[in-house]
Amino acid sequence: MIPESIKKTIEEFSKLPGIGTKSAERLTFYLLRKKEEDVERFGATVYALKKNIRYCEKCAHLTTDPLCDICSKPDRNSELICVVEDPLDLIAIEKTNEYKGLYHVLHGVISPIEGVGPDDLKIAELVERLNKNSIKEIILALNPSMEGEATAAHLMRFIKPLSIRVTRIARGIPVGGDLEYADSQTLKRALEGRMEY
Amino acid sequence: MIPESIKKTIEEFSKLPGIGTKSAERLTFYLLRKKEEDVERFGATVYALKKNIRYCEKCAHLTTDPLCDICSKPDRNSELICVVEDPLDLIAIEKTNEYKGLYHVLHGVISPIEGVGPDDLKIAELVERLNKNSIKEIILALNPSMEGEATAAHLMRFIKPLSIRVTRIARGIPVGGDLEYADSQTLKRALEGRMEY
Repeated sequence: MIPESIKKTIEEFSKLPGIGTKSAERLTFYLLRKKEEDVERFGATVYALKKNIRYCEKCAHLTTDPLCDICSKPDRNSELICVVEDPLDLIAIEKTNEYKGLYHVLHGVISPIEGVGPDDLKIAELVERLNKNSIKEIILALNPSMEGEATAAHLMRFIKPLSIRVTRIARGIPVGGDLEYADSQTLKRALEGRMEY
Repeated sequence: MIPESIKKTIEEFSKLPGIGTKSAERLTFYLLRKKEEDVERFGATVYALKKNIRYCEKCAHLTTDPLCDICSKPDRNSELICVVEDPLDLIAIEKTNEYKGLYHVLHGVISPIEGVGPDDLKIAELVERLNKNSIKEIILALNPSMEGEATAAHLMRFIKPLSIRVTRIARGIPVGGDLEYADSQTLKRALEGRMEY
């Protein structure tokens, strides 16, 4: 009823998260209406996505060189480490132009439901880094989810004995957010974290 | 801040309809966590999507052979043509297992806003087909949108002089739908199209 290459493309698209069969069909037929060279460029780009991509030897961010762009910059404060779940969180923080320290990318959080344990994350690498280098502060920038909290608790077991200052990014009402619609947990944290006017 | 291949993949994904930068980032990082061979297979599949794909010489459905699967089947009723907007509509009708005639795929509808005129569609091919073959009935299975209606009206100009029976698929309350929530246009069409009990 339909050529094999179309069927296979629909199949591949529908494996992606948040894309069902209907969306996969729509995307495939969208591409079929595009110029062949555009479709080929998309395919070739995805094909080469992981080529030469490796973990930064220091912070485990994704890079093509032994050290990532951030770790290889001499002007970053190497006594400050911000721990994030994944590279997208790192990028979000970089976009603020506020943070001048280094990072450590865990590549996930501890989640027994999804079968992710501490050994699947870059935790051993973080502990080694803390032991080998002089670090003044660790900022835990994990998501305020149950998994994020569990991961933070797990990390604390290794960090506490090292007597390094540990901070967490503030929980509170987002800028532009509406107090009235905030959930009570967020509001509670916002009150706890209140600052001098 | 981020390797070029990742940036480019995010860019390509965000060109797809309904996928913004955030979703494109999520999809790209999802692929980065997959095995390299899986990512390469996805890329290679998309790369080859349009290779050897052509229009069926008879009905303009997508195929790899001169004639599509449906047109080359001897048991289909060649005196019956169902006109659809695109291959996905054809597939939807085929899934009912009800229709045994042939199709004609227009590959779009007339839409001045999107710059699609009659010459961009497979209308000339349909007219030629109607003139050359003995056709008993044409079923217009276009979407009940303004563009669908305009396209149907345009087609009628060519079909009317040929005195072929023309029908349209019924408009009405969908099976499982709720009469109370149907819009008045649908309800009006449902009343007009009422059938004997």
